[in-house]
Amino acid sequence: MSEAPSRVIIDCDPGIDDAIALMLAYASPELDIAGVCTVAGNVGLDQVVDNALRLCDLIGGPAADTPVLRGYAGPLARVPRHPDEPVHGAYGLGGVELPAAGRAAQPGHAVDWMADQIRDRPGEITLIATAPLTNVAALLHAHPDTRTRLTEIVVMGGAAFAPGNTTPAAEFNFHADPEAARYVTEAGVPLRIVGLDVTRRALTPLADAQALIADGAPVTAAAGHMLSHLIERYASRHLVRACAVHDALAVAAVVRPELLEWTPAWVTVECAGEFTRGALVADVHGRTGRPANAKVATGVDADAFRAFLMSRLRGRYGAAGAASSH
Amino acid sequence: MSEAPSRVIIDCDPGIDDAIALMLAYASPELDIAGVCTVAGNVGLDQVVDNALRLCDLIGGPAADTPVLRGYAGPLARVPRHPDEPVHGAYGLGGVELPAAGRAAQPGHAVDWMADQIRDRPGEITLIATAPLTNVAALLHAHPDTRTRLTEIVVMGGAAFAPGNTTPAAEFNFHADPEAARYVTEAGVPLRIVGLDVTRRALTPLADAQALIADGAPVTAAAGHMLSHLIERYASRHLVRACAVHDALAVAAVVRPELLEWTPAWVTVECAGEFTRGALVADVHGRTGRPANAKVATGVDADAFRAFLMSRLRGRYGAAGAASSH
Amino acid sequence: MSEAPSRVIIDCDPGIDDAIALMLAYASPELDIAGVCTVAGNVGLDQVVDNALRLCDLIGGPAADTPVLRGYAGPLARVPRHPDEPVHGAYGLGGVELPAAGRAAQPGHAVDWMADQIRDRPGEITLIATAPLTNVAALLHAHPDTRTRLTEIVVMGGAAFAPGNTTPAAEFNFHADPEAARYVTEAGVPLRIVGLDVTRRALTPLADAQALIADGAPVTAAAGHMLSHLIERYASRHLVRACAVHDALAVAAVVRPELLEWTPAWVTVECAGEFTRGALVADVHGRTGRPANAKVATGVDADAFRAFLMSRLRGRYGAAGAASSH
Amino acid sequence: MSEAPSRVIIDCDPGIDDAIALMLAYASPELDIAGVCTVAGNVGLDQVVDNALRLCDLIGGPAADTPVLRGYAGPLARVPRHPDEPVHGAYGLGGVELPAAGRAAQPGHAVDWMADQIRDRPGEITLIATAPLTNVAALLHAHPDTRTRLTEIVVMGGAAFAPGNTTPAAEFNFHADPEAARYVTEAGVPLRIVGLDVTRRALTPLADAQALIADGAPVTAAAGHMLSHLIERYASRHLVRACAVHDALAVAAVVRPELLEWTPAWVTVECAGEFTRGALVADVHGRTGRPANAKVATGVDADAFRAFLMSRLRGRYGAAGAASSH
Repeated sequence: MSEAPSRVIIDCDPGIDDAIALMLAYASPELDIAGVCTVAGNVGLDQVVDNALRLCDLIGGPAADTPVLRGYAGPLARVPRHPDEPVHGAYGLGGVELPAAGRAAQPGHAVDWMADQIRDRPGEITLIATAPLTNVAALLHAHPDTRTRLTEIVVMGGAAFAPGNTTPAAEFNFHADPEAARYVTEAGVPLRIVGLDVTRRALTPLADAQALIADGAPVTAAAGHMLSHLIERYASRHLVRACAVHDALAVAAVVRPELLEWTPAWVTVECAGEFTRGALVADVHGRTGRPANAKVATGVDADAFRAFLMSRLRGRYGAAGAASSH
Repeated sequence: MSEAPSRVIIDCDPGIDDAIALMLAYASPELDIAGVCTVAGNVGLDQVVDNALRLCDLIGGPAADTPVLRGYAGPLARVPRHPDEPVHGAYGLGGVELPAAGRAAQPGHAVDWMADQIRDRPGEITLIATAPLTNVAALLHAHPDTRTRLTEIVVMGGAAFAPGNTTPAAEFNFHADPEAARYVTEAGVPLRIVGLDVTRRALTPLADAQALIADGAPVTAAAGHMLSHLIERYASRHLVRACAVHDALAVAAVVRPELLEWTPAWVTVECAGEFTRGALVADVHGRTGRPANAKVATGVDADAFRAFLMSRLRGRYGAAGAASSH
Repeated sequence: MSEAPSRVIIDCDPGIDDAIALMLAYASPELDIAGVCTVAGNVGLDQVVDNALRLCDLIGGPAADTPVLRGYAGPLARVPRHPDEPVHGAYGLGGVELPAAGRAAQPGHAVDWMADQIRDRPGEITLIATAPLTNVAALLHAHPDTRTRLTEIVVMGGAAFAPGNTTPAAEFNFHADPEAARYVTEAGVPLRIVGLDVTRRALTPLADAQALIADGAPVTAAAGHMLSHLIERYASRHLVRACAVHDALAVAAVVRPELLEWTPAWVTVECAGEFTRGALVADVHGRTGRPANAKVATGVDADAFRAFLMSRLRGRYGAAGAASSH
Repeated sequence: MSEAPSRVIIDCDPGIDDAIALMLAYASPELDIAGVCTVAGNVGLDQVVDNALRLCDLIGGPAADTPVLRGYAGPLARVPRHPDEPVHGAYGLGGVELPAAGRAAQPGHAVDWMADQIRDRPGEITLIATAPLTNVAALLHAHPDTRTRLTEIVVMGGAAFAPGNTTPAAEFNFHADPEAARYVTEAGVPLRIVGLDVTRRALTPLADAQALIADGAPVTAAAGHMLSHLIERYASRHLVRACAVHDALAVAAVVRPELLEWTPAWVTVECAGEFTRGALVADVHGRTGRPANAKVATGVDADAFRAFLMSRLRGRYGAAGAASSH
């Protein structure tokens, strides 16, 4: 969006698509990544932290030195539960085993660290959240001054006009902590939401996963194997040899916002429904008369995103690309 | 769907699109219309009954003799409320004034009459419901034997994966009586649902409304004027010179089911949400593991529907068509 | 309340305490009982109808000729469910087997029959409802003119400030059909509510049950055995050799309203809570600013009720009393 | 409960009854008060902090040196709202103006400070919470290890079987942050709940307020004037010249638990109801089959509490008592 790199914090729960999102972020010179915060979600917090550390090591370069912080182990307003169905494989990375990390998470709580970062560089930091919004809501609650100091929050979550992937009405991240998601929508921070409405239409086909594996470099191969795992699971439900890479699209939304179509809307998250708890509600037609508090991604240039993701991954991490970039 | 005409009961609340739906139904030799039942919805019950009677007179032929029955004046589980915003114009027909009806509604309650009809011809009757489902739910509740005697219920209502037209999450008919809509989904009757997911993608353009007006015959002209009214209102929100004719698509779903794409799903209606009351919830990906209780229209051949509607209206009621058909 | 007998309709689901309520009603010359309507509740509808017929035969006299009508087999807005736990014994009367009834229920639906009765004698009829309010809500919905023609509705149900007997927050009748109960509170009919707040404080001790058994006359003996059954079950939870006879207190509320303390309040019934569905909400302190729509029984003269009940049952049905009354 | 003083943290939002609770706590040699934490509630956070500081100065002695900490400015899961109706007067202390405090709140967040205190003395600290449970829930969420290190949490809040004082179903503290209250019930910490069920039955009469004023010492006079203010407001709704001093009863529950009757129960807080949001749900009869997670105060020796409160306030702060105690 600007010439100078955007300073970003990534709040995530890797998870395969978080892993690809991290790879994409570190392959994007448009981003200056202040740190990686973690929160329970796809897997439990300890595993999430471990995965984040291993991924940063795998990615290497500045990633290996980026602060990784521990956040919340469960949602804001309910006792913790973890997904029953290991979509992301036993350890959350699709069966891809990465070497043990060479370091531990940085001491301190992710939320307090984020507050410090935001206060240090007011008006400069964009928060990319690809996990349940527990940390983000807690940040805005415990440190309300950060609300006016953040540039923007870009969230992967919700399914305004698409089937949910956890319940018929709700997407995983919003369903995992509906109160947190609602809190973020009410906090008055510039907010963009990348939900299943677009991620499900920007699929990565098996051919791309195979090309990454064939490339053979460590990061591309890991990415390819993770994506293959996801495609297999996805195929069983969606009858297509391709998969959504939800979180990577949220990173793309910061680096290449023009890949998506954005609709301003008043949004909230249903916390009380019998069948709709965690559902993103988006008033794109102005039915409620309430002013927009978010931009919702309602369209995507799927081919362009696919090309962008492949080009970045292969350009930065691929056998050929890596050679030329070093 | 079959060679012999299908015996149908139409439960409606005219309303402009109900009016077009009635015109389409009476223009379809595939249907044998047992009667027209009424229920509060787009406008209050007295107006709905009066509109139904006037429309039947306007349509003429067998319509003028079809029984018209009074049903419920308000929803199943709440004190009656009527829409604040007169989408359908002061009298519910877009400002088109039809001559006073030459008869009154038939004595007796719509629900009891429906039960009698269904018992008289078990396994033969299809119910087309284009209004809040109060009558239909009350039928299935008060006369549970009809559940196994109905061929099918085809409902216009809901917005599973599209923005609502009453709240961000809910379509008018389902929002007007969520408990009734939910009851119908639970009753074990073969059920097809035609919601905003498809009606919003099968628009009637201004050119068609103008062509109907230009045709000049009484029914086509009335249809054209009503549609023009709707297109004007629709344009203010949707920035397009065209309108959805929701209820007519439900009639088409019976006459020409192949115009739509049908997805089997477990469905229900949210009655308890803070922001989602009245929302249709459709489990098209089998997330809940519950067996399908409905087929939801998830795709439509918009051009074919447009052509079908115009051809039927002009062929049956138009200056040329009427001449040749009489 | 007046010199001439009050014309009443009893809507019930016998059930032990309904049985005692019927006995009390027929032992009360202050009441002129137009008919007994039935609805699913304590047991399924067929059993409820059969029980009502057998009880009327047992009671004899005018009871044997009172119309008994079939009503709804399940709640207004959900598929029927029956209580898992047979509080009232296998057949709903505490194991007391009454002779088969000498007649069947009167043809026609209870709700339509009630409407006719109320229209025939506008301003004269009091409805005593001791079961889920399905029939009553359906009456007010299908026949809205009855709302201004009823004298009053006296309901046994709810637990405003007492523990529920089905869930921690809800009493059985209101929990069995919360939408119906809410509908009744909104209908604008004079309404008195006799809930667990008072019925749990007006217990019938084992000694009274034993005295009724010892009396030996058919009705008193049956009453005594039913009450003994209830006391045994009640004792297991409440650690007291006594039981509430909820429905009989609703009859007493009509015959002897001064036995209870009445607090005017705006009331409603929670239909949407996660833990409070079916809870009676009573605004006795005017927190909401809404005008009172009911009088809630908030106090009871327990000794006087106990004496009243025993005196009526023994005086009308007992060995000595029956002798003197014939 | 034990010979050595109990180490307690008081989490409060003064507020008149919080003020009396603080006075009572500091008048109780059975308590060793580690600190006073503050949270938005009766009034906004800044005012609450200021009131707490002024009260500690007024009380004097060790109170003047107790750490006072700032906590959360609004509830866990909603944007902050403050009570519309100034029950506690413009500044929250019934119009009693106390001298400006001689110090500011201690730096750091109340929740982190509590966590440190609890870790320093595991198994020793009792938390007395007389305000919305935002701080307490955040403590248990952000520092889950404290759950097993707290001795007990004693909460003033809820109205299980009594009318609410904010809505018909909900008490102020629970209604102000239902998600926090629910979180606390689910956290597995020993929990006692002192709700309106008992506080409304342990009233302080006008005579006691007047006696405190007559005493004339600074603390007793302030207490008397605050209570007079509360009694006046209370009288307008409850028609009695007396008032509940809710929070003081929670302190008494720690110092003199035998003044109350305790019923073990599974409890939760309704977060989703249309009319019951914030309602305490207490399963005192074991309807749900869930194990007890709290003890709920269901009875109180009102006379003994009244005597206890007066004796402590006059004995420690009164003209005579203070003379003898110094």
